[in-house]
Amino acid sequence: MKTAAIVGGGVIGGGWAARFLLNGWNVRVFDPDPEAKRKIGEVLDNARASLPGLYDMAMPDEGTLTYCDTLAETVKGAKWVQESVPERLELKHKVFAEIQAHLDPEAVIGSSTSGFKPSELQEGAKDPTQILVTHPFNPVYLLPLIELVPGDNHDPRAVAWAKTVLTEIGMFPLEVRKEIDAHIADRFLEAVWREALWLIKDGIATTEEIDEAIRMGFGMRWAQMGLFETYRIAGGEAGMRHFIEQFGPCLSWPWTKLMDVPELTDELIDQIADQSDAQSGMYTIRELERHRDANLVGMMRTLKARDWGAGALLNTHDKVMNQTGGIAERLADVSDLSKPVKTVERAVPIDWTDYNGHMNEARYLQAFGDATDRLMLIVGCTPDYIAEGGSYFTAETHIRHIDEVHAGAKIRVETQVLAGAGKKMHLFHAMYEGDRLLATGEHMLIHVSLETRKASDPAPSVADPLARLATAHADLPRPEGAGAAVGVR
Amino acid sequence: MKTAAIVGGGVIGGGWAARFLLNGWNVRVFDPDPEAKRKIGEVLDNARASLPGLYDMAMPDEGTLTYCDTLAETVKGAKWVQESVPERLELKHKVFAEIQAHLDPEAVIGSSTSGFKPSELQEGAKDPTQILVTHPFNPVYLLPLIELVPGDNHDPRAVAWAKTVLTEIGMFPLEVRKEIDAHIADRFLEAVWREALWLIKDGIATTEEIDEAIRMGFGMRWAQMGLFETYRIAGGEAGMRHFIEQFGPCLSWPWTKLMDVPELTDELIDQIADQSDAQSGMYTIRELERHRDANLVGMMRTLKARDWGAGALLNTHDKVMNQTGGIAERLADVSDLSKPVKTVERAVPIDWTDYNGHMNEARYLQAFGDATDRLMLIVGCTPDYIAEGGSYFTAETHIRHIDEVHAGAKIRVETQVLAGAGKKMHLFHAMYEGDRLLATGEHMLIHVSLETRKASDPAPSVADPLARLATAHADLPRPEGAGAAVGVR
Repeated sequence: MKTAAIVGGGVIGGGWAARFLLNGWNVRVFDPDPEAKRKIGEVLDNARASLPGLYDMAMPDEGTLTYCDTLAETVKGAKWVQESVPERLELKHKVFAEIQAHLDPEAVIGSSTSGFKPSELQEGAKDPTQILVTHPFNPVYLLPLIELVPGDNHDPRAVAWAKTVLTEIGMFPLEVRKEIDAHIADRFLEAVWREALWLIKDGIATTEEIDEAIRMGFGMRWAQMGLFETYRIAGGEAGMRHFIEQFGPCLSWPWTKLMDVPELTDELIDQIADQSDAQSGMYTIRELERHRDANLVGMMRTLKARDWGAGALLNTHDKVMNQTGGIAERLADVSDLSKPVKTVERAVPIDWTDYNGHMNEARYLQAFGDATDRLMLIVGCTPDYIAEGGSYFTAETHIRHIDEVHAGAKIRVETQVLAGAGKKMHLFHAMYEGDRLLATGEHMLIHVSLETRKASDPAPSVADPLARLATAHADLPRPEGAGAAVGVR
Repeated sequence: MKTAAIVGGGVIGGGWAARFLLNGWNVRVFDPDPEAKRKIGEVLDNARASLPGLYDMAMPDEGTLTYCDTLAETVKGAKWVQESVPERLELKHKVFAEIQAHLDPEAVIGSSTSGFKPSELQEGAKDPTQILVTHPFNPVYLLPLIELVPGDNHDPRAVAWAKTVLTEIGMFPLEVRKEIDAHIADRFLEAVWREALWLIKDGIATTEEIDEAIRMGFGMRWAQMGLFETYRIAGGEAGMRHFIEQFGPCLSWPWTKLMDVPELTDELIDQIADQSDAQSGMYTIRELERHRDANLVGMMRTLKARDWGAGALLNTHDKVMNQTGGIAERLADVSDLSKPVKTVERAVPIDWTDYNGHMNEARYLQAFGDATDRLMLIVGCTPDYIAEGGSYFTAETHIRHIDEVHAGAKIRVETQVLAGAGKKMHLFHAMYEGDRLLATGEHMLIHVSLETRKASDPAPSVADPLARLATAHADLPRPEGAGAAVGVR
């Protein structure tokens, strides 16, 4: 098994250690900080909780993690050394010299430096071509970007090996072809940071206002398309050239404190437009818009499920809209107890469809699960009740798919209580688009104690409303398909 | 019903029209462009396809859209006027004068201007306090941010009405308390744009490389936390003050072309640290890290499902990992046909758990759906086969939840073919964590023609491998729970 040497722990070194370990490499760590083990352990905990689930495959078995007392022991036989010591050039030179005294010649030393150029790092090294910049982004165990800067004095075999290793551990090595202070991404971060400091100093905005200005707007565009592909869309049918010409004049306006701007020559405009064609020309503007929108919808729905940022706003708006809408929150809001209760009314989101072009089967259960949640709320199984330790778990589900439905369609779920006594709640959901029956879901739920995780009787605040609704539904005809097994008509 | 007047169509005006319409307002549009109807129609199509599904409620019924020939007719009786004409101050002044000649005094005129300050817009107006900046971000129908800039000369009732209206249509009005050229967000966009132009001009990076440098890294951080909350985490336990002091020296380094930087006085550092405490101090750094990671995982999994950006990279890495892994892609890869086939092996992602602290019921079906997809692939129902018009649709599903499972656990699905002949494929999935049975899923699938959407016989390239596997599984014992109905033991 391959071994990576991590020189310098902390948040960045710990993130590298996690990447290698979880991708099956053995990892040796050198960090004189007495707190290094604890710090790296915490990063590893975060990484183990988040990275493996990103994949739809099992990751390899974890490698072995060893803490070493000397650099010599750390790097001996390693195929990769990652240096993440503090940003002091003389310290880095000293560390490289010690590493190169013990390292195999074919191994690569990647430096996590944010700002130094490879030519600066290589000064005075025994083998300068062994040292590359491989600059990561926090959290290193999740974000894939690595700025790989070989510099002018490089060995193509070392660069190829670096790409192989970084790709193998799931990263995205972006080769920076020409070295420059702060590489690429940090130049943008620094430009924004400088502008943000002015805004705070001048009393225009607070840190919170600045963060909202980013994450409620362009931050979400950048997460999936970046700057130029986003502006290509803004240029619309007239294209990238039009966009640049239209916004060119702003360059001479005081829109930032940062006024040293390049001249927008025809040559520069052509260069940008041509590069944009090469990057995104395989899509029409309409196609790009649809990709962007579907990406944004998915990301915003993710944040909605987490009640965070732009997603928290959507949850608030849900509540505002339901003030005039028809989904009950309490039994007292249900207008006619003798009929099935409307528990879901919504549009099918674009991220709920699949390669067959229709709503994916798991999303039917998601909608039925939402219907169950709503019925639980209506009979008093509220967030407060759940916080006190009672809830219902689904024991069994039977779904019949009757008809297809597509993104954008307005669907509705009506719920009939087949039984609701003791520990059991037996529900039958019917999903419609207008009058068209799309699917049915029959569900057996069991009331549990969240402490013991075992079946328990619900409190009267839930048992009574549920019994009332079950009694009111007792005279409804038994729905077609209830009680059936798969494949039995 | 309330009426909004949209003055100036195009991508921005069309986005405003969509926001108001889909939130139940009537909308009147004025735009002399003969292409306006088509352009706004296209924006509306995009909005109808994407916005409603963001909510877990049905949106109100759409309002009525009217195209008007005169400004007078457009704005008469409107409660809101949104101006999105080209960025020429004298044109905006002319339009405001014409609008104010016919508009109710209590209505608000919001300007979509990217750069002009309200004091500039208000010059010479009949009622200056009726004019506010309400600057949106493309796509206006999805991104919630609105920079609401009232300027010094404002009527608090107009500002309150603006907040009410913008909130009602699902937006996030960020009040910019002190007017400044380009408000807040566009100053950041402009700073990055200027730096990007230098990088292209100097041959450091192409448009594509710049976009990758953004969306594979910090773009995803910004989509959910912005700049300062992200850096608060980077500061770690030592806090925001430590972060600023640590990175303060970079301000004097040539990390951007943009060198006019504010001096980092103790006062400025205190100001930032205090604001950051007010913004994020309710979370510990560990909590912020976990929120960030869960947000990132969800967003990256969204992009993965769309095979886009950082998500496309995850899909590639899945394939790389499976080269040494154990999930078959063809029948020939299955080592022992006489046993259930391993069809899923993965970690439970953090975004698959719910308020009960365990994997949500819909995610069981998602995993079983993935298992079905994999079995389809194994028997020859490949993407190529599906592209030619054949596929399987799930007709019926029966899930039994036997035991709970939590985020991070490694789960496995083994699949037994109960029958596979003619149009039918009858599968039984069993989900395990190690030896612990978590759930079973019994599924009846029907082969369909994707053209007619009706049942059809599979081609021999699928029928034959499926029959071979069904025959090999025929001697396996019938699994416990197969053929059962909900609630029947």
